[in-house]
Amino acid sequence: MSAAISIDEHDDIARVTLRNDAKLNALSFAMWQQLRAGIERLAASPTLRCIHIRGAGEQAFSAGADISEFAEMRSTREQVVRFHEEGVGACLTALLECPVPIVAEIRGACMGGGLEIASACDIRLADETARFGAPVGRLGFPLAFAETQAVYNEVGPAVAAELLLEGRVFTAEEALARGLITRLVPSGMLAREVETTLANVCKSGRWAARSHKRQFRRLMQDPTPVSVTERMEVYGFAETDEYRDGIRRFLARKQGSAGS
Amino acid sequence: MSAAISIDEHDDIARVTLRNDAKLNALSFAMWQQLRAGIERLAASPTLRCIHIRGAGEQAFSAGADISEFAEMRSTREQVVRFHEEGVGACLTALLECPVPIVAEIRGACMGGGLEIASACDIRLADETARFGAPVGRLGFPLAFAETQAVYNEVGPAVAAELLLEGRVFTAEEALARGLITRLVPSGMLAREVETTLANVCKSGRWAARSHKRQFRRLMQDPTPVSVTERMEVYGFAETDEYRDGIRRFLARKQGSAGS
Amino acid sequence: MSAAISIDEHDDIARVTLRNDAKLNALSFAMWQQLRAGIERLAASPTLRCIHIRGAGEQAFSAGADISEFAEMRSTREQVVRFHEEGVGACLTALLECPVPIVAEIRGACMGGGLEIASACDIRLADETARFGAPVGRLGFPLAFAETQAVYNEVGPAVAAELLLEGRVFTAEEALARGLITRLVPSGMLAREVETTLANVCKSGRWAARSHKRQFRRLMQDPTPVSVTERMEVYGFAETDEYRDGIRRFLARKQGSAGS
Repeated sequence: MSAAISIDEHDDIARVTLRNDAKLNALSFAMWQQLRAGIERLAASPTLRCIHIRGAGEQAFSAGADISEFAEMRSTREQVVRFHEEGVGACLTALLECPVPIVAEIRGACMGGGLEIASACDIRLADETARFGAPVGRLGFPLAFAETQAVYNEVGPAVAAELLLEGRVFTAEEALARGLITRLVPSGMLAREVETTLANVCKSGRWAARSHKRQFRRLMQDPTPVSVTERMEVYGFAETDEYRDGIRRFLARKQGSAGS
Repeated sequence: MSAAISIDEHDDIARVTLRNDAKLNALSFAMWQQLRAGIERLAASPTLRCIHIRGAGEQAFSAGADISEFAEMRSTREQVVRFHEEGVGACLTALLECPVPIVAEIRGACMGGGLEIASACDIRLADETARFGAPVGRLGFPLAFAETQAVYNEVGPAVAAELLLEGRVFTAEEALARGLITRLVPSGMLAREVETTLANVCKSGRWAARSHKRQFRRLMQDPTPVSVTERMEVYGFAETDEYRDGIRRFLARKQGSAGS
Repeated sequence: MSAAISIDEHDDIARVTLRNDAKLNALSFAMWQQLRAGIERLAASPTLRCIHIRGAGEQAFSAGADISEFAEMRSTREQVVRFHEEGVGACLTALLECPVPIVAEIRGACMGGGLEIASACDIRLADETARFGAPVGRLGFPLAFAETQAVYNEVGPAVAAELLLEGRVFTAEEALARGLITRLVPSGMLAREVETTLANVCKSGRWAARSHKRQFRRLMQDPTPVSVTERMEVYGFAETDEYRDGIRRFLARKQGSAGS
């Protein structure tokens, strides 16, 4: 199919590809629903260690909305509500609540819905061809609220204002300076950097990684000091095999050495 | 008048000038009240698209408080309360709650109250002459709480500590590295960059821009996930002429092309 | 003692040293408890103006946990709870709630618990030898929740993901670019920059500095607009001698000059 989300699982890593041939991987309503269903399925895996999201080809992560659907799916308020609630918003929630770390590999256009997906990932790696923006205000409409929140939570108020009030499109360098991407990699070396990063994410214990993701999600939504109940739940690591084995291996390796 | 706020409206843009001749645009109590009244009036305009704030002349945005008023207006606790509650704080609230995007053009001193005004704007453009600080601790007093919050919300805890605990004054380069300004522009090119930015802000639909500002204000005050009621209000864009016209024009332009 | 926290008070400044000889100042349970007790004592001083924390020697701020204690103190869930609740977490709370500004001087390893202590300080100065990380996930466990919160609050979600999901260790340059340190100083000049910074922090009124710290703590935990009650408490500065004297000296110095 020329427009679809594909997912390949291999060992610890699931590979998710955004594909919409000849449209710079623009996102159709069906693709938002497929991506949500795929992420929800992966989230339920007890063994998965990392999810890798990229756009098909070398031209784009995703250029945003598939405009061929505007007339039919986004003309009335009822359609708009359905598009955003059942399509985009539900998919972003699935990404944000996914207990498995997600790494985005970004080349070329990362616009609108593409930027929203990237913002809902944990780690964003880009090369020099990447471009980031969401100038929907110029088309006469705001970003839907849950979508603004996904972007705002990663970049803060000043960069959100540049993106949405000014309609600015950032180069990869500009995105790096603003903390919109995690790291910028020279063209030609991005694929290798992504594989190294995935391998490093996979070195983490599954219990540890899932705990870190739950902790981050709480801290993003609620800045009050964590309660004793919340802290106690995290201490559950002490009863996992991953902890016992990890410490045993670590101590064996360090035996006789000083410091940690 | 040599110390006053002036406001000129022209087409979509209101131009606000902070002026206190021979005092680097230091802010008197009367100026805080004038600025508040002016912003509240502009906020009520249904057609305005952008507000531009700058200091008169080329020497300063604003050097802070007009010290000639200290003895008379800030000696007793009662005076201090009135100065901050009815002057500075009420004005910052008007800026922060203004539904129209605000762009600050910053040259020279941007200190104390000047920094607070800049922090309450959406976009801060500065040239290499700009200096930023609020070393009031050295005078023996803290920033008033609402004023600290306006600055803290833009820069975060680490930069707030540099500004207020250390009393550090930042160069324009240092301010850029800390995200305290949006962009740094070579001297001599600032006025043009400001006009380009204002023009870009004006390209946004009014409904879209006001929705984005309301969204940002909510997200700054409340990090919990947006509710369905809040999301539904934003979908109101679907029934505006700006949306229908914007999409129609966009689709006409794109007809026959792929991607968005 | 070769593993201990030492504290020297001299005039306005308390000097705290993390020492664990031959272990890169790794932190034992006893050291966490000593540091907590020391900070709580300093917090009660009405006259102290600044706290300076560094690692003993030139090799490290702190390399993290003292691994020789793992078997005995962190094997069972009960031990883990005690270690984190009565050791690390209680100490971080003491640092975060300390009303006196804290400056960290960072060379070499600043890992795990060392990174957590640094994150709970107000100002972090480092030289080019500094390294920052907390790759505990690779040992099979997550950071305890209160410890994650201390780090997350300073660096935000994207950098927290690099540190904890990827297990990345940052150079001083990388830490600076991510806002993890306040300033990076060339090797050989760090001690002098720290003394200048301490002197600048000491220039602030005690009432002002303590108010700023309380304000920051509130803003970190609660983003809602500050209430009138909270604002009124801060206006208490108007009745302090520090305010009256500071303004009097300032006005005397400025007499005849324009601006502030």
